[in-house]
Order: sequence, then structure tokens, then C-alpha cells
Amino acid sequence: MPDYHAPLRDMQFVLKELLDCQNHYDSLSGPEPVSDDLLDAILDSGAKFAEEVVAPLNRSGDEEGCHFDNGEVTTPKGFKEAFREYGDGGWQALNIPVADGGQGLPSSVGVAIGEMMGSANWAWSMYCGLSHAPVTCLLQAGTEEQKKFWLPKLLTLEWAGTMCLTESHCGSDVGLLRTKAEPQADGTYKLTGTKIFISSGEHDMAENIIHAVLARIEGAPEGTDGISLFIVPKVMVNDDGSLGERNAVHCGSLEKKMGIKASATCVMNFDGATGYLVGEPDKGLRVMFAMMNQARLGTGMQGVSMAEAAYQGSLTYARERLQMRSLSGPKNPEDPADPIIVHPDVRRMLLTQKAIVEGSRAFLYWLSFLVDKVENSTDEEASKHDDDVLNLLTPVAKAFCTEAAFESTNLGLQIFGGHGYIAEHGMEQIVRDTRISMVYEGTTGIQALDLLGRKVMGSGGEMLRNFTKVIHKYCEATTDPEMQQFIEPLAAVNKEWGELTAQIGEKVVNDLDEVGAASVDFIMYTGYVVLAYMWARMAQLSLAKQDDAFYKAKVQTAQFYFARLLPRTKAHAAAMLSGAENLMAFEEAGF
Amino acid sequence: MPDYHAPLRDMQFVLKELLDCQNHYDSLSGPEPVSDDLLDAILDSGAKFAEEVVAPLNRSGDEEGCHFDNGEVTTPKGFKEAFREYGDGGWQALNIPVADGGQGLPSSVGVAIGEMMGSANWAWSMYCGLSHAPVTCLLQAGTEEQKKFWLPKLLTLEWAGTMCLTESHCGSDVGLLRTKAEPQADGTYKLTGTKIFISSGEHDMAENIIHAVLARIEGAPEGTDGISLFIVPKVMVNDDGSLGERNAVHCGSLEKKMGIKASATCVMNFDGATGYLVGEPDKGLRVMFAMMNQARLGTGMQGVSMAEAAYQGSLTYARERLQMRSLSGPKNPEDPADPIIVHPDVRRMLLTQKAIVEGSRAFLYWLSFLVDKVENSTDEEASKHDDDVLNLLTPVAKAFCTEAAFESTNLGLQIFGGHGYIAEHGMEQIVRDTRISMVYEGTTGIQALDLLGRKVMGSGGEMLRNFTKVIHKYCEATTDPEMQQFIEPLAAVNKEWGELTAQIGEKVVNDLDEVGAASVDFIMYTGYVVLAYMWARMAQLSLAKQDDAFYKAKVQTAQFYFARLLPRTKAHAAAMLSGAENLMAFEEAGF
Repeated sequence: MPDYHAPLRDMQFVLKELLDCQNHYDSLSGPEPVSDDLLDAILDSGAKFAEEVVAPLNRSGDEEGCHFDNGEVTTPKGFKEAFREYGDGGWQALNIPVADGGQGLPSSVGVAIGEMMGSANWAWSMYCGLSHAPVTCLLQAGTEEQKKFWLPKLLTLEWAGTMCLTESHCGSDVGLLRTKAEPQADGTYKLTGTKIFISSGEHDMAENIIHAVLARIEGAPEGTDGISLFIVPKVMVNDDGSLGERNAVHCGSLEKKMGIKASATCVMNFDGATGYLVGEPDKGLRVMFAMMNQARLGTGMQGVSMAEAAYQGSLTYARERLQMRSLSGPKNPEDPADPIIVHPDVRRMLLTQKAIVEGSRAFLYWLSFLVDKVENSTDEEASKHDDDVLNLLTPVAKAFCTEAAFESTNLGLQIFGGHGYIAEHGMEQIVRDTRISMVYEGTTGIQALDLLGRKVMGSGGEMLRNFTKVIHKYCEATTDPEMQQFIEPLAAVNKEWGELTAQIGEKVVNDLDEVGAASVDFIMYTGYVVLAYMWARMAQLSLAKQDDAFYKAKVQTAQFYFARLLPRTKAHAAAMLSGAENLMAFEEAGF
Repeated sequence: MPDYHAPLRDMQFVLKELLDCQNHYDSLSGPEPVSDDLLDAILDSGAKFAEEVVAPLNRSGDEEGCHFDNGEVTTPKGFKEAFREYGDGGWQALNIPVADGGQGLPSSVGVAIGEMMGSANWAWSMYCGLSHAPVTCLLQAGTEEQKKFWLPKLLTLEWAGTMCLTESHCGSDVGLLRTKAEPQADGTYKLTGTKIFISSGEHDMAENIIHAVLARIEGAPEGTDGISLFIVPKVMVNDDGSLGERNAVHCGSLEKKMGIKASATCVMNFDGATGYLVGEPDKGLRVMFAMMNQARLGTGMQGVSMAEAAYQGSLTYARERLQMRSLSGPKNPEDPADPIIVHPDVRRMLLTQKAIVEGSRAFLYWLSFLVDKVENSTDEEASKHDDDVLNLLTPVAKAFCTEAAFESTNLGLQIFGGHGYIAEHGMEQIVRDTRISMVYEGTTGIQALDLLGRKVMGSGGEMLRNFTKVIHKYCEATTDPEMQQFIEPLAAVNKEWGELTAQIGEKVVNDLDEVGAASVDFIMYTGYVVLAYMWARMAQLSLAKQDDAFYKAKVQTAQFYFARLLPRTKAHAAAMLSGAENLMAFEEAGF
């Protein structure tokens, strides 16, 4: 496995310089204050934990996988202890309000920590991530009593959590779900049904597992309007907080998967399991959607985490591996060959990775600042704007950052040549672990429909226009001649983005299939525009400081991005403008 | 695992209609005649073997993998029997000249058979593929005596084969190899060294394994000019053909890999192993290059094989899986949801796969016809032209068809959603098995350097011009108004292709790194142009027959290709024109 070193310098650049976190944190009234010193201390401490505790379990976790025996799941060696240490260290409660027993820091601080844990060992970090699911549900819709009862041990990770949504016949189409909930005289419910693909559904890392479950109360309407949300504990909890009997929810089997093998993906059978309603009956999807938005940003962050891990691995290899001479003359004449980092195509692969990972990091950290603001704003108008941008870009963060990360991690493998395909170097594991990110929490296709259908077309283009205006104003305001190399192409794609949307909008009036026909190319196009905006802003901060290699690299990576990656918008534009006919007129017998 | 059904209709379309194989086979003077009936019989029989014998071992092969114990390798259950049956059936000798003990059919017939075996079970088919390596070497450079001694049992697969090239410090840079060969008094050599990544290096499928090994005779020059080729048997063979003592070549370990787990990838230790020189001393690379060209085309065919398998799996799933309603109204009102094939984005993914697999098949079968012609031509000028086109496009077939196949197989997985990531459906195995194809037999980067550096620039642009002229003439000659939807864009990219090459050529004069900086985008661009040429020709054959769903689909897939995939050339053109500076000026400290 490539050694993981938390990219603290780049994280601090994004947080402090690009996003001006000091001003940002000072402007929030809800959370605890975050000084630069506190932030540094948290990042340093998180980095140490990720590098020293979590990363060493990554490769062995993949090799060992999880084991299922008679309903019980054993996680790989060391996972439990690291989970315990993470809970004891208070990491899980970092951005939970103080009133609810957390440390009360803004969400964005947790995002940076999440990136590090994810790079170090994504499969392990999923147990922590899923344990947030019932917490988020309860914070969103639970009563004070429910919060007091369930939250404390979820925050210390004495109890873990899950989110139980998918059934075998219903993945993206959640309205089809069949798990039923029968009301009991004591106000509880008995849940019956089978859920599949439940991450962390069963394991040995905590004394209890709290499932957040979607089910349909008997007699509720069909479709999405009849879905309620329940808390279903693995082990019943007595009123005094002590553990009681085993609840009737059991793991039926573990899935064998391409990757994230150390993450237990379970079939969960609910056989009249006791559940507690959270929020109003039939309104469960609303609560789940809040959680899913968080999960989508978290999955986008998986892209950053994995792409960073792959970049670090392939960069080290490219500096060490000697193979062939530079075409422009030996660069390392004392050895029989040059390090492969001298070859232009290896640099192309490294810079593609660098541009994607740093651009995506900037994008996602920025969104996490919007989350901070939306969660804490008192200014209704500003909050509406931030919330709109956040809602618009959440599917982009999920879809684009994972698709780009898959490309990145594959380039990481490619730089290793044959050695990349071999398990011992860890590069192929990164590719396998990344592959799921384009699928779970809604596939790229589902995100694309959400963006173009629900958000862009659904708002009559307004949500998009509000954001293209932000970029437009930025371009107008940025008059520095040195910046025009970035501003001109950025303004051009920003303008084209609006025009493309208008053209699709005209077609959609006559045929709703035009949405699906354009959607994935549209979301990829959008991602490239957003990253161009991020790279322009990062270059702007760096232009004057190019004596320092760090800043010079920022400017050069931005130049690389604009020269070699942004032109991909041309291909996406042509594809989306080609319309639905080349897809829908195709006769089924012809496939 | 998705069931495999050999795409005989499409194969026959390409062979008979697109490539007019009857005329082609009649024009060859060397090989045995191939009537339409014979061809059909061979394809049918190959399909049966692939579907019934080889495909059922694919998933179990991946699950079981190979096992190493004390120098011996055990292959998955059933592999040995299928290998035996394949050898007994004469499949391995299909396109070996009759004079050398084969069936004497043209190479192209073997290519279609190879596609089917590869789709059915790539890992298994590698044992057959590698067994061709010593055969090709011997046919190329062996003496009559050597051929008589070694070939017969290699052709029945009583003996298997390998090709031993890579060492741990030398992959792409073969000139660095260190394995040494000491001449013995009896004319044999003693080989000492360690080879890695040796596919089929050791296994239990045959009584002997014949290694084709590159090594340096003591005192030979450094670099590529001092490399010789040897035959090194696992078990010594007595003069009467009976097996003798074990030779000093042993498997040291098996690699754990991302995929092709049923293919034994071995570290091979030569400890003074007896070897027999094939061809002249120090001229081994020439022979190996002939073999590598064949292997590159074979790897390109892996792309087709895998993409076909993934397409079949995801098409079946897309027709059966019910999820969500069509945005333009229910298509399957009696069920709670529509089959996902009604969704435009699922169709986009299916058609991308279809356009890639059928376009790549046409491309590779056409190249196999060029191989037939080059191998059998008596017309020197025509042969030079064919050989040039073949040499120009071999790296394209290898790099583009595998890169496109990786995209295709990932789309196949994606259509399955979460189920695609789970081992039981077999889609993730296809992705893992495909991933190696972009690496072995020379990475995409190496192929790209070969194309742009050695072939295009190395011939002063002539090899490319000769081929752009073919397309140009085709466009000029195709005046049918219905064809102009394809001819206009094809002529445009063909023209741009030449212009881009000229522009890069100008830069290369001053800086050889401009080759590497443009190379991968250039080879991908080239692949899209070649597939556009193939699709135009396939559409041309089909336009008048659109009453038949098969031909209508050809026209529509061509339209899809031109509308949605060919525009990717725009992104590649922009990237390659951006030049070397954005890569080479990047300071190493900045990575």
C-alpha cells in the first residue's frame, strides 16, 4: 500500500487562503469558534490518527475482508480497536451541536477529517460514516426524548449505525419499497421485510447497532408518500439505558464485492423487529433526503480521498521507477534509465490526477462552507442563495467527483504499469474501492437526472442562472491581465453552459426524455465548469507568490487544467446537443 | 455470470458483408480455401465450445484462482479438461500452415475463434494464447529441425507455452534485461535470471511447458542489440521425443492480481536452465517483435471480447430490471415500474457499448484480413501498403480498443447499479479482467509512443498519409446523399487528423518531448477516426436494408456513434495541441 501522508498543506491552502475560513468561522453564530490554531491542531491530530492508526489497516482489511458465520460478522483485525479509539477520541461528535452532546464545531471541519480517514482506509471509515446516519435522522426529526435516549452512545461509537433503504427490487426507485411496519399498542412498530446492500448492517465493532430504516406503515399510501422512518436497534435498550434482548433484525448474508471488502455489506432481515417512529408517519423520505444529501457529499469526498491516495502512490513510484530515457536526452545519466516522471505522458497522468484531486477538494470544501452557512444563517435571503447553490451542486459533487476520481485512480494504477495490477502495491485496491462511489447513494445517472431534471429544469433554469451569475460576476471583476488566461475560457464555458441549458430546455417542453438524454453529459460539463472556477480562483491567489514552489505549482496546475481537461466540455456539449432521438428512436429489437 | 452467446450474426456480417471474405479468401494462395459453409461450420463449432465448455468455467475460475504450493501451480477445476479438449479438437492448430502440422486456415479465422473463447473466459483463453508464443517464434526463426521437434505437441496442447520477457527492473524498457545465457560445448545454453509477470509460467494443464525466453548471451552488447531468443522447456525432451529430466526453471511464486485470477502469473527463476537458441544470436528482439505484434492484436481483441461479454450482460439486465417510470409516460403499465431500457441514459450506456464493441470488432477483423494478405501476398507493392497500414494501426488496435473496452465494461457494471458491484452477477469480474489489457503487451502510453513517434513521425508522416488517403478516397467515392451524414464528419476528422499531425510534427523538430506530450491523445483521436470509418462503411452496407431490424440497428448505431462518440476528438485535439510546455515546465518539486 502506498504510505498515506495527509495533504495538510493543500487542505490549509483551501481552508485558509481560498475559503478564508477565519472570517467564515467568525461569521457563524451557532457553532463553537474555530481559531486558526484550533483548526491546525484538529487537522494535525486527525492526520496522525489517519496515518498511524487507520492507514495501516487498509491493505490487511482488503485481504482479510469480513466473515459471516451464523448471523455474526467479524471485521478484519484491528478494525474494532481503531473504531473504539476514534469514538473515544470524540471524532464522531466533532460537528454535533454542544446541546446534543457534541463538540459543536462547524460541519466543514468534519469534512476535512473525513477526507483523511477516507484516504487512509475508506472501508473502515464507512463504519463511522454510517454511524452518522441515525444521528442525522434524530437531529433532523427526533424528539428531545429520542435524542437523549439514542444519541450519547452513537456519538461515542459505543453504538454504531446504519441506513436501511434498498430492497432487492427497489434501488433508485425507493417508492417501490415493501418493508412494512405494524403499529403496536405501546406506540412502537413491528417491522418486517428484507433490506439489501446495508453497509455496516452487522459487525463486531460495537455493542449495539442502531438502524435507520425506511418502511411503510400498514395502510399507508403506495409510492413515496407512504414511507416512514424508524429507529430499529439490533439489541433492545431498556429504559435505564442498559441493553436488553436481541431485537428481531438479523444479517442473512454478506455480499462478495469488487472492493471495499472490509466494509460489511449485509442482507438484513427484519422479522417483526421493534422499531420507533422518527418524525411524522409517511414523511420519512423528507428526513432521509436530508441524510442522503449529506451522504452524497460524503461520497463525493470519497472521490477526493481515493484520488489523493492514488496520486500519492503513483507520484512516489514515478519518482523512483527507472525505465527508458527521456526523449529529449538522459536526465539521470548515472543510472541505466531515467525515472519515469521525466516522460511527458507520465506527467500528463500525474497532472490529471493533481488537477482533479485538488480541484475537487476545493469544490467540496467550498460546499461544506455552504453547509456551515445554511445550518447557521440568520440572513434568510443569503441563506436561500447558499442553499440553492448547495442543492444545485450536491449531485455534481457526488457524480463528477466520483467519475473523475475513477479516472484518477486508474491513472494511478496505469503509472505503475504491470505492478499496478498486482495486489501488493495497493493501487488496484484503490481502483476497486473507488468504483462503488459512482454507484451507491444514487448512480451518476440518478444524480444527473436530479441536477438537470429536478434542479435546473425544475426551477425553470433559475437555480442554474443564480450560479452562472456568480461566475459571471467573478469574471467581470477579475481584470488582472495575468488572470485573463483563465478568465476568458471560464467566461466562455460559463456562457455556453447557460446557452446549452436554454437549448435543452426548449426541447424538454416537447419531450421529457430530452432530460435523460442530455443529463449525464450535462452533469459532467457542469463539473468541468465548476472545477474551472475553482482553479481560476486558486490560480488568482497564487500568481503573485510563484517564488514558492507550492504556489507556482498551483498556477501551473491551473494552466494544465484549462489546456487539457476543460476542453472535454466540447465533447460533452456536442453529445448533449445531439438530443434524444439517437437514443429513443432506436428499436429495442436492434440492441 | 451473464450467459454468453457468441454474436455469430454480427461476426458474419463483418466477415462476409463488410470484409467480403469469400473474395478475400479466394485471393489468398497460401492457406487452405475457406468456403462460406466451412466458415459457418467453424464459427458454429467454436461458438458451441465457447458457450458450453469454456464459459461455464469463467466465474468459478475467478473464485478459485490458481494455487501455488512448493513450485507447483494448480489451476481451477475444469480448466485442464477444457484445455485438453481444445487441443484435441485441433483449435490451437487452426491457422498454422499445413506443412508445419496445422490446419492451414488463414489467420483471420483464428481471430474470430479467439474472440469467442475470450468473451467466454479470458483467463482460460490466455493459456492457449501464450502457448502460441513459442510456436510463433519457431515459425518465424526456428530451423526445420527445431520446428519438427517442438511444434507437434505444442499444436495439440500436450505442451503449453509462455513468453518470458519482463524482469522486475525492466518492463517497457526491454533493453535493460539481465537474464544471461552461457554457451555450452554441446551448442545449448545455460540460462540464469529471474522473469516476472509470466502468464502461464507454471500450471498443471499440460505435461510440458515450452518457454520462449529473452536473454543476453555472455559478452553480448548492452541494450536491445544484445538480446537473443531461446526455447527453454520445463521438462527436458529426449531425442526420441520422450520426456526427460526436469529443467532448472521453476516458478518462485504467483502474483495476487486485480483480475484474470484464473491465469497463473508467475515469477520464473532460471537457474542454469538449458535453453536452445532460436534464430541468430543477438537478434532475438526482431523475432519477439513479430510475436508482440500478434500479441498486441490479441490484446486489442481482448477489448472486443470483454466489451461483448459486458454488453450482453447489461442488455439482458436492462430488459428485465424494473425501476422507475419513463419520463415520457409509463411503458409497462401492468407492472409497478418500467424496464430500465426505457430510460434514455441507460440507452446511452448500452449504445456506447454497442458502438464500441461492434466498431472495434470490425476494426480488428479488418486488421486480421490485412495479416492474411501480408502473410500470403505475392504482390510486393500491395503488400507493402497493407503491411504499412497494419503496422500503423496495430498500436491503435491495442490501445484504443482496450481503453474503449474498459469504458464499455464499466458502463456494463453501471447499468446493473449496486448489483454490478457484487461478484455474483459477474459484471465486476469483467471490469477487473479487462483492466489488465491497458497495461500488458505495452501500456497505452507505450503504444501511443510507437504510433506517433516510431510510425507517424518516424516515417515523416508517410505511413499516416497513406492511410488518410484511403479514407479520403472512400469519402470522395461515396456520393450517395443518404451517406453524407457520415461522410461529411468523417472527411472532416480525417482532414483534421492530417493537420494535427503536421502541427505536432513542426513542434517535434525542436523538442522530442512534444511526441510524448501529444501521444496518448493522438492515439485516442486516431481510434475514433478509424471507428468512424468502420461505422460509415457498416452503415453504407445497411442503409438499403433497414426493413430488417439488424441493418436498421447498424444505421442507428452509426448515427449514435457520429453524434455522441466521435465529438470526443475535439477534446483530444485540444489537449494534444496544447503542447509539451504545460507538462515539462512543471517543476518536480511542485508535484
